Amino acid sequence: MNKIEHIGIAVKNLKDSNELFSKLFGEPHYKVEEVKSEGVKTSFFKVGNNKIELLEATKKSSPIAKFIDKKGEGIHHIAFDVDDIKAEIKRLKKEGFKVLNDTPKKGADNKLVVFLHPKSTNGVLIELCQEIKE
Amino acid sequence: MNKIEHIGIAVKNLKDSNELFSKLFGEPHYKVEEVKSEGVKTSFFKVGNNKIELLEATKKSSPIAKFIDKKGEGIHHIAFDVDDIKAEIKRLKKEGFKVLNDTPKKGADNKLVVFLHPKSTNGVLIELCQEIKE
Repeated sequence: MNKIEHIGIAVKNLKDSNELFSKLFGEPHYKVEEVKSEGVKTSFFKVGNNKIELLEATKKSSPIAKFIDKKGEGIHHIAFDVDDIKAEIKRLKKEGFKVLNDTPKKGADNKLVVFLHPKSTNGVLIELCQEIKE
Repeated sequence: MNKIEHIGIAVKNLKDSNELFSKLFGEPHYKVEEVKSEGVKTSFFKVGNNKIELLEATKKSSPIAKFIDKKGEGIHHIAFDVDDIKAEIKRLKKEGFKVLNDTPKKGADNKLVVFLHPKSTNGVLIELCQEIKE
């Protein structure tokens, strides 16, 4: 794993939170992206070579809506950048981690992504992501 | 803010979690440190130029014991590296953030640290840290 690619934060209102995090970082978000398959609208901030991703649910069945219902706003997941996501899935399954999707799927920010079940990782939802190179 | 310095994860048993995260990262932790004033024992893993800090409570009154009682194991805080923590405290207070300690205090890993109250930051406990240079 190369670095923390981003930290995902579940928010109720993306507009309000974009303002809040702009004040925190002293810089505005640099992009907004909707991932329809996941029912989320996201915005991204840069902090050095790491990113913060804010996530707002666009429908009630979105994992983000469910997360906020249960736990309130806050940190939703940590994403680590990897070079070869398929090799990492294979390695981590062998180590006993529970992988949520065996085949990586297309996420926000031009990435292939996979999630590890928090029950196998001390309650932390972990995403692995690999940049899609054309 | 220069980068995500580390993510703090609250765990019940540091020994077990060190093993778990060693498997996750494919590398063991590189140090263990106790911060008596906070009632925590910590261990650190490197992921590129970011770190993961595992935190185990050493007494019942520790903020980590209280966190786990309330929310279970999981992500406790995000720490951002800053060059001038006093200037950041001043700037963030002016922006309306609630700073938990007006004067930075000595944290783990040779750092001056300050926390922002999660009520002012979308439910996210944020730490700012500045390396102590002799």
